[in-house]
Amino acid sequence: MERIDTLLANHPQRPPDPSMIAAGVAACYECGNLSVASSDACLAEPRVAELVCCIRTCLDCSDVCLATARVVSRLTKPSPMLVEAQLMACAEACRICAAECEIHAAMYEHCRVCADACRACEQACRALLHGAP
Amino acid sequence: MERIDTLLANHPQRPPDPSMIAAGVAACYECGNLSVASSDACLAEPRVAELVCCIRTCLDCSDVCLATARVVSRLTKPSPMLVEAQLMACAEACRICAAECEIHAAMYEHCRVCADACRACEQACRALLHGAP
Amino acid sequence: MERIDTLLANHPQRPPDPSMIAAGVAACYECGNLSVASSDACLAEPRVAELVCCIRTCLDCSDVCLATARVVSRLTKPSPMLVEAQLMACAEACRICAAECEIHAAMYEHCRVCADACRACEQACRALLHGAP
Amino acid sequence: MERIDTLLANHPQRPPDPSMIAAGVAACYECGNLSVASSDACLAEPRVAELVCCIRTCLDCSDVCLATARVVSRLTKPSPMLVEAQLMACAEACRICAAECEIHAAMYEHCRVCADACRACEQACRALLHGAP
Repeated sequence: MERIDTLLANHPQRPPDPSMIAAGVAACYECGNLSVASSDACLAEPRVAELVCCIRTCLDCSDVCLATARVVSRLTKPSPMLVEAQLMACAEACRICAAECEIHAAMYEHCRVCADACRACEQACRALLHGAP
Repeated sequence: MERIDTLLANHPQRPPDPSMIAAGVAACYECGNLSVASSDACLAEPRVAELVCCIRTCLDCSDVCLATARVVSRLTKPSPMLVEAQLMACAEACRICAAECEIHAAMYEHCRVCADACRACEQACRALLHGAP
Repeated sequence: MERIDTLLANHPQRPPDPSMIAAGVAACYECGNLSVASSDACLAEPRVAELVCCIRTCLDCSDVCLATARVVSRLTKPSPMLVEAQLMACAEACRICAAECEIHAAMYEHCRVCADACRACEQACRALLHGAP
Repeated sequence: MERIDTLLANHPQRPPDPSMIAAGVAACYECGNLSVASSDACLAEPRVAELVCCIRTCLDCSDVCLATARVVSRLTKPSPMLVEAQLMACAEACRICAAECEIHAAMYEHCRVCADACRACEQACRALLHGAP
């Protein structure tokens, strides 16, 4: 069991389904974190000029995923409308970044890994939006 | 003239209206930055228990404003749909935080300052959304 | 194998020991992420006034760990002196936060989980500083 | 008077010199924010391959400055040793980024603006470290 599961399960707000929230939060954090390393790997490629769009979408993705993870992991006095709006922005950021990374996935393994994390996060955001596991 | 204006005006993308973008970005950054200091000021108040909701909304606001400022300030290969979704989330975060801070504004000057920055940022986000200055 | 391991192992810089860097980066991210959720759990406790210092140290810890993880995970043209200075700040942030969380660990499970992550991250930062696994 | 001055001057901790702290915090935020926009402007340049190091140092600078601004702007139960360590890391990040941006300042106005902000922030961090205005 991951630490974030244990922590949210012991949050004084006692959320009805802490493990589902923890899964969404973990997906956002992983994607946000990977996007930083992935943009840096693109930056070091000799053909960096072909990866400009990929670097930019990764940087956006890292910022949006991080903000989303932080907002969703706060269970004290939540604002459902903000959570929803931020999850929608995050799903969009991940969709765009995944589509861009997939273009380069066959050539660069780091792009493939990032694309996978983006798709997983997009799905996790949509799951939280629709209240389904 | 602020440095951010000069920088965006000299961005190779040559945006049609850099000063309008700079104004929106500056409002998001100011609100995001103030919300951090404001949540800390609330945390130091002897009656902190009454300010729990205010602290939480400020923390959300700081994260969402920061991500929005970063995304909007990137002019290379932008994704209009992501910019729009993130601006909507930011306007919502600022609206919620302003409403909460205003409850305490008469008692705490730091809440009043934060509420002002939130209202200014909410308005700046809506101006960028509607393409109006 | 974690995605961050795979990504760093495929970074064009070909670092001599990607798994050691990945372990340090992962510890920083986990601690940074948990500290956000932990500060929120403290904020929701009825006896929040006793947890003011814990909330504050967690917020610092989350910001410092995040910045450190991002800097360390970038392998392109690194600046050893900055990496070292940031790792030292991070070890200090984690040490302070762990010590504070440990005071409350017997009463609050969320503080115990956060303290564990802080100690693990402090150790990971020191391992990277001393170049030992 | 800037909002951050007013806010810190009204913080319940009543710091002895709020305007000096506010100046340091403002410099960190400005440099952190500009570095994001500056890295993006470099990314859009046709000769991006020559700016790889500049982009990377800007991204580090943005993360470190932001974390520093947040830590320093929190006045509740501060940890002087962490503040000092983080200010030292920030001065180093700004020094490195300024030196790199200055190489390109004659060719790119956006690099010149970023270099100026980095030098101002480096100086502000050292002023806070030495307790001098």
